[in-house]
Amino acid sequence: MKPTIHVISTGKQTKEEFSEITRIIHEYVDFIHIREKSRTALEVAEIVETLIGKGVPLRKIIINDRVDVAEVTDVYGVQLAYHSLSVHHVKKNFPNLRIGKSVHSVDEAIIAEKQGADYLLFGHLFHTASKPDLFPRGVSQLKQLTEQVNIPVIGIGGITPHHSPHVFRAGASGIAVMSGILQADDPLADVKEYRNRIEEVQYGAEL
Amino acid sequence: MKPTIHVISTGKQTKEEFSEITRIIHEYVDFIHIREKSRTALEVAEIVETLIGKGVPLRKIIINDRVDVAEVTDVYGVQLAYHSLSVHHVKKNFPNLRIGKSVHSVDEAIIAEKQGADYLLFGHLFHTASKPDLFPRGVSQLKQLTEQVNIPVIGIGGITPHHSPHVFRAGASGIAVMSGILQADDPLADVKEYRNRIEEVQYGAEL
Repeated sequence: MKPTIHVISTGKQTKEEFSEITRIIHEYVDFIHIREKSRTALEVAEIVETLIGKGVPLRKIIINDRVDVAEVTDVYGVQLAYHSLSVHHVKKNFPNLRIGKSVHSVDEAIIAEKQGADYLLFGHLFHTASKPDLFPRGVSQLKQLTEQVNIPVIGIGGITPHHSPHVFRAGASGIAVMSGILQADDPLADVKEYRNRIEEVQYGAEL
Repeated sequence: MKPTIHVISTGKQTKEEFSEITRIIHEYVDFIHIREKSRTALEVAEIVETLIGKGVPLRKIIINDRVDVAEVTDVYGVQLAYHSLSVHHVKKNFPNLRIGKSVHSVDEAIIAEKQGADYLLFGHLFHTASKPDLFPRGVSQLKQLTEQVNIPVIGIGGITPHHSPHVFRAGASGIAVMSGILQADDPLADVKEYRNRIEEVQYGAEL
């Protein structure tokens, strides 16, 4: 399976800023997550419309938490957190949506897989400015987790291009990056660097 | 049509406090709105479960804004605000839910009806502590509005038992009350007083 890159919105950028960066980078990434906790349902739906207008395909868009917005905008899927509706409920009522579940332990991962999650987001793996007080779970716990579940696991949290090979070697199917791309001086250059490092792993050219 | 009483949660009470008052009053009211803007999807779903546990029928429960939670919990309907998904989108994707739309003008009301809203919430009608800086729209604007639309209109905003007859005479089908019931010293006594005043209007016994 081709390794994937997920880009997750920061919740701090304007709609214009986020969508303009997305326009530039979307061809080099696999999924764009709209994770805008302080925005209303209508605003999130408007962001989807804006991204579509910038040429981002619907199949690349994932919406955080708001299952209703994901359903009416017909995007690829929804990312559920601990405070969201359960995977079980969403699976049953929204069969057209792919369901990603954010997990923080092997136990949570196993439950999410049983409930029907299509993939997992696990982290955070490394030190990150967005969660300065949390001790990173690291790639060893990631490896344990990927050995216990059969669905794809995406690593998240402080992943630099340099880290990416370790994340994939621990069994992850993808990486998720937030500020590392969206708040970079040159987001396109950064995306390409992540992509290059990933392809080095894939084709065994890294060492 | 029987006049209805809607009780709307304050967003300030604990789940326990709100559900306990609801247990006491629900037989005397027609709809209970869960309007808890600062709560997560999971918390709102848990409130629904708690209300069901207290004997409140699903057909009396309306959820504010979170269409997804309304769908998975199978409640009566959803109340949409200006920042929510559009009536049109919700109607198309969630055919099982009744849709209430909050409006603040005749124009908004006409649009909401055209888009398929099942009823309207219009206000605020009178001075209310929750919106101290807004000038109340009053019953005369309510009357204009009820003459322009065919779907039921529920009045909201500072409605006391004393006001209720005026609201119904202006063509409203119901009243919505928040703190006037939920933060009353004796919520059950207050509900009964609203109910009595409404029945006086209905049976022409008020004058």
